[in-house]
Amino acid sequence: MSARIHARYFIETPYDLEHAAQVMAGEQSSGTFTRLASETDTLREAHGARVESIQRLEVVDQPSLPMRADLAPIAAHRYRRALVEISWPLENLGPSLPNLSSTVAGNLFELKEFSALKLLDLELPSAFVDAYPGPQFGTTGTRRLSGIESGPLIGTIIKPSVGLTPAQTAEMVEQLIEGGIDFIKDDELQANGPHSPLKARVDAIMPLINAHAERTGKKVMYAFNISGDIDEMRGHHDYVVAAGGTCVMVAINSVGLAGVTQLRRHCQVALHGHRAGWGLYSRSPHIGMDFSAYHKMWRLAGVDHIHVNGLRNKFSEEDDSVIASARACQTPLFGASAPDYTVMPVFSSGQSAAQVADTHAALGNTDLIYCCGGGIMAHPGGIAGGVASLRQAWEAAVSGVDLIDFAREHRELAQAMETFR
Amino acid sequence: MSARIHARYFIETPYDLEHAAQVMAGEQSSGTFTRLASETDTLREAHGARVESIQRLEVVDQPSLPMRADLAPIAAHRYRRALVEISWPLENLGPSLPNLSSTVAGNLFELKEFSALKLLDLELPSAFVDAYPGPQFGTTGTRRLSGIESGPLIGTIIKPSVGLTPAQTAEMVEQLIEGGIDFIKDDELQANGPHSPLKARVDAIMPLINAHAERTGKKVMYAFNISGDIDEMRGHHDYVVAAGGTCVMVAINSVGLAGVTQLRRHCQVALHGHRAGWGLYSRSPHIGMDFSAYHKMWRLAGVDHIHVNGLRNKFSEEDDSVIASARACQTPLFGASAPDYTVMPVFSSGQSAAQVADTHAALGNTDLIYCCGGGIMAHPGGIAGGVASLRQAWEAAVSGVDLIDFAREHRELAQAMETFR
Repeated sequence: MSARIHARYFIETPYDLEHAAQVMAGEQSSGTFTRLASETDTLREAHGARVESIQRLEVVDQPSLPMRADLAPIAAHRYRRALVEISWPLENLGPSLPNLSSTVAGNLFELKEFSALKLLDLELPSAFVDAYPGPQFGTTGTRRLSGIESGPLIGTIIKPSVGLTPAQTAEMVEQLIEGGIDFIKDDELQANGPHSPLKARVDAIMPLINAHAERTGKKVMYAFNISGDIDEMRGHHDYVVAAGGTCVMVAINSVGLAGVTQLRRHCQVALHGHRAGWGLYSRSPHIGMDFSAYHKMWRLAGVDHIHVNGLRNKFSEEDDSVIASARACQTPLFGASAPDYTVMPVFSSGQSAAQVADTHAALGNTDLIYCCGGGIMAHPGGIAGGVASLRQAWEAAVSGVDLIDFAREHRELAQAMETFR
Repeated sequence: MSARIHARYFIETPYDLEHAAQVMAGEQSSGTFTRLASETDTLREAHGARVESIQRLEVVDQPSLPMRADLAPIAAHRYRRALVEISWPLENLGPSLPNLSSTVAGNLFELKEFSALKLLDLELPSAFVDAYPGPQFGTTGTRRLSGIESGPLIGTIIKPSVGLTPAQTAEMVEQLIEGGIDFIKDDELQANGPHSPLKARVDAIMPLINAHAERTGKKVMYAFNISGDIDEMRGHHDYVVAAGGTCVMVAINSVGLAGVTQLRRHCQVALHGHRAGWGLYSRSPHIGMDFSAYHKMWRLAGVDHIHVNGLRNKFSEEDDSVIASARACQTPLFGASAPDYTVMPVFSSGQSAAQVADTHAALGNTDLIYCCGGGIMAHPGGIAGGVASLRQAWEAAVSGVDLIDFAREHRELAQAMETFR
């Protein structure tokens, strides 16, 4: 097994860059703080991580993250930035997601030599394909389960986030179904609390979805939030499946890699990945993980959908980051000889017909789930008007017709353009 | 169920502090970006998170984390800092660790209103005790399993980190056992790679530990790193137990909350929690999570030991943070009426006899695992000398005898003081 794992980092250090990169490689493989006699050259050659490249960037005069007080004399107001690529022999750890995480995103974040260290990207050998099944449904399977053959799935989130009883939730679901929605999801805060137990929600909601499917042939996809302990998730998954559901949702950071992997191996429906807590990884340029690296682990673990925010969203993420993330989800994970493990990006947060044209122009396709809250609920034509306005906006975008022209003959779109500027 | 979950945060925002805190509370409970008609006052009263207090701190003129470009006009060079306490009705989520994580450490990290947001501490209702068994062995059980009735467990980590075969690892273990060690752990990078499969390691190591136990009555505790997927961990746990092992180790961040909880429910031996990746939570003062909040979730999940670095360690953590973390591990998690869920702190990284007196003085007890690499291996008297020097240093510290005086009659300690300054 001669395959290697590659990872790219942004670093900042008061030390010599070559030295600092070697510290990272050493700490994360055969080395320790002091070179031991037992770390022979042969062992190091076979199992040491390798510094593949160092691309120097600017020098700054203040550390971006606090450094230990006793290191101040070393620093002397010169903090060197660089992009560093490090590689590991797969033989050290094998194709294991938790151990990959310990290797590329473990102790190195704590190394005293660095005043910034962020994991930017990962390149993995195809042995991971044999070890992890990846997404079970992805775009094609999600389209099949939901009956939406083209265009994005138009979706929404049950709001208020928490506080509705199962019966109140079902009332809202009924209105959404009648309004023509394709996809509905629980809020990430609504899983299995005493006020709205998962099974009671399934009991209240699925008969409505099933009845509508029998009547019309269209089965609305409802992502039930089953985030919880392992046995609980397994039981709730089975309950959703038995009731005819087509999707379960998990808060991936909260459940963790091993839990999501286990759920995927058991799962019979689409697995919707919510990334609550993502800001902890993404908000600082100086510590954490870029989406490029982050989402690859979850694709391997096997989610079918991942959230990416949306253009002009209500969070802190910039538009170019949103689009880069969505593109990443749609890019094959390995070479052409392996399954592509692509997943559907989920656009959400402050979305309405107003962002559709720009989203399509930036992404170039409709293989996505487009979730709107106010963009549907606050439409002057009600839920049906909101959903129609979104379909019209996507139709215009895909056809290359200007939204203003298209709105002349599509009232709901015109109303949306008036309401959501 | 009227119990509430409390969380404290450090925040920084260009918005009015009262408004910003309400945004946090709203986003993480019944609210969404726009107040919906369905979020009635009654619902909000029953399920909304509540801002319990705001303690104003300084105002700074630059944002600590980058804010979205379009918010620059709002900011106007006044970023207000504060400590905020928010509480949630337990009824929203129930005593569920993954959903606790989504609630107190979820979307709020992404809120555009904040240029810093760090979770500082958590206070949980005792319903979590009924839902999670917590540590199975803790200090008392670890002492029973290892036969070390008083004083710290003197431990070490197998190094090189990766690269040794199972046979080479066993050779080292043999020397360590003969040297009088109490505790040995795998490196966090050494789990079940092709070069040193877990089962082969168990096969090579446990006969040595068992033979020594039969000869002397002392069973050295070996923390086998079984981090991996759920079924793999379960199988490896069973293999360790069948071979007579007394401890398994997991990289808790890499495995995740649901996985560690599941392992704990199955576990028959001490569960050693390694926090590889901890720097991602801790290194920035402006995003992430303090140990106070972090370790409570893992104690509930059920680890028996958690790493805390050590005084004058080789990482970026300051000494006061190390001691605060160790004390936190030893502080009861709930009131006097509940089990205390205390865990053993694991001191590690650059430790030797040189830090013992200060560690004891700061902590005031010996309920800990004290891991040394070079502090044992590089001792002039070899492994036995290193281990002896550590026991002597702890004996002096506990007896209140000055190390220099004690070293006059204890050669190994004298050597250590000469070697590790």
